[in-house]
Amino acid sequence: MANHPKASLPVIKRLPKYYRYLKALHAAGVTSISSRELASQMGTTASQVRQDFNCFGDVNGRQGIGYSVEGLLGLLEGLLLGNGERLPTILIGAGRLGKAVSRFITSNTNGYELIAAFDSAPCEVGCTVNGIQIRHIDELREFCAEHKPQVAVLCLPREGATEISGTLVELGIRGFWNFSHYDLSVPYPNVVCENVHLGDSLMSLGYRLRND
Amino acid sequence: MANHPKASLPVIKRLPKYYRYLKALHAAGVTSISSRELASQMGTTASQVRQDFNCFGDVNGRQGIGYSVEGLLGLLEGLLLGNGERLPTILIGAGRLGKAVSRFITSNTNGYELIAAFDSAPCEVGCTVNGIQIRHIDELREFCAEHKPQVAVLCLPREGATEISGTLVELGIRGFWNFSHYDLSVPYPNVVCENVHLGDSLMSLGYRLRND
Repeated sequence: MANHPKASLPVIKRLPKYYRYLKALHAAGVTSISSRELASQMGTTASQVRQDFNCFGDVNGRQGIGYSVEGLLGLLEGLLLGNGERLPTILIGAGRLGKAVSRFITSNTNGYELIAAFDSAPCEVGCTVNGIQIRHIDELREFCAEHKPQVAVLCLPREGATEISGTLVELGIRGFWNFSHYDLSVPYPNVVCENVHLGDSLMSLGYRLRND
Repeated sequence: MANHPKASLPVIKRLPKYYRYLKALHAAGVTSISSRELASQMGTTASQVRQDFNCFGDVNGRQGIGYSVEGLLGLLEGLLLGNGERLPTILIGAGRLGKAVSRFITSNTNGYELIAAFDSAPCEVGCTVNGIQIRHIDELREFCAEHKPQVAVLCLPREGATEISGTLVELGIRGFWNFSHYDLSVPYPNVVCENVHLGDSLMSLGYRLRND
């Protein structure tokens, strides 16, 4: 998997969708697929499919046969899920949203392992989320020093996120799944940040419904 | 607001972020801002800021003064939130994720109004989510015929979403906030669909952490 050319962010964002489609094809017993068929199922173009896979070295479909479904699936599994090596992850903010999204971390299918959850609300601390005990946020430093999590899921309001993200970066967190409205990649350009701005998503939908 | 040139999807996706930043500036008493300052706060370039706003007609900053914060805010409020007219919305799937994300609909700040929630699980039906009673999915047709919702929030697994989206389109739903892994814009190209694929988002983050 080493030495493949660097894929752009839009290509990276499309990879999980390829992965999902290929998994479904594989489950259905399909062994090969052309770029044209894959494109039409995914609502894209054959040329984009070919360009996307070209980012990952010598991935070529065979003339008249197409791509090997198993081959592509193996490639994507390695790229996206690290061949089973799971990233140690902590949840910051274990309210309703935090509890709901942490299920994606604990599902064992996305390449992460939830090792702790933190909150400051007395009604949450001591409870569990998907089998993980919710600790008081004051225990964060000590926990990180000992267990070295790499990823933090931020499910807290903007103010809280602004306050805590510097500490998290300092404690060794290098990836954020960020549900807060704090754009932390501006002050911390070296961390990897995947923003899920649900309010923004709704507003974009509203724009398209009202103006398109 | 009529007759502005059509903005591309990437521009539309950036508008909520501008809106958030401008709201914060307005709250802080800032009355004008240059494209350069706005760009640096948002982690983009001045040229992109100017190009983005050019999509919406004669929005120009004044030389040496910049854009009027209030002016831009008013423009974006109209574009994104429809000047207070709220889109009638139903929630399909009132489990943990549905309950968590419906808060964004009921918050009164995003331009939507949650008018009903539907589920098929006996343990959910009859309960409430953010003050809205959860109905059995069998009541969907009758409810839609009477109340004419325009937007559906899909918080159910792929299979359920595949099954129900045709019915929803037929019942007049023209916008989807889609948390399922069913890419419904492929079979229904005329509906407006905003996908929030949380599993995909996590996998993209994993790719960048493992390969960048």
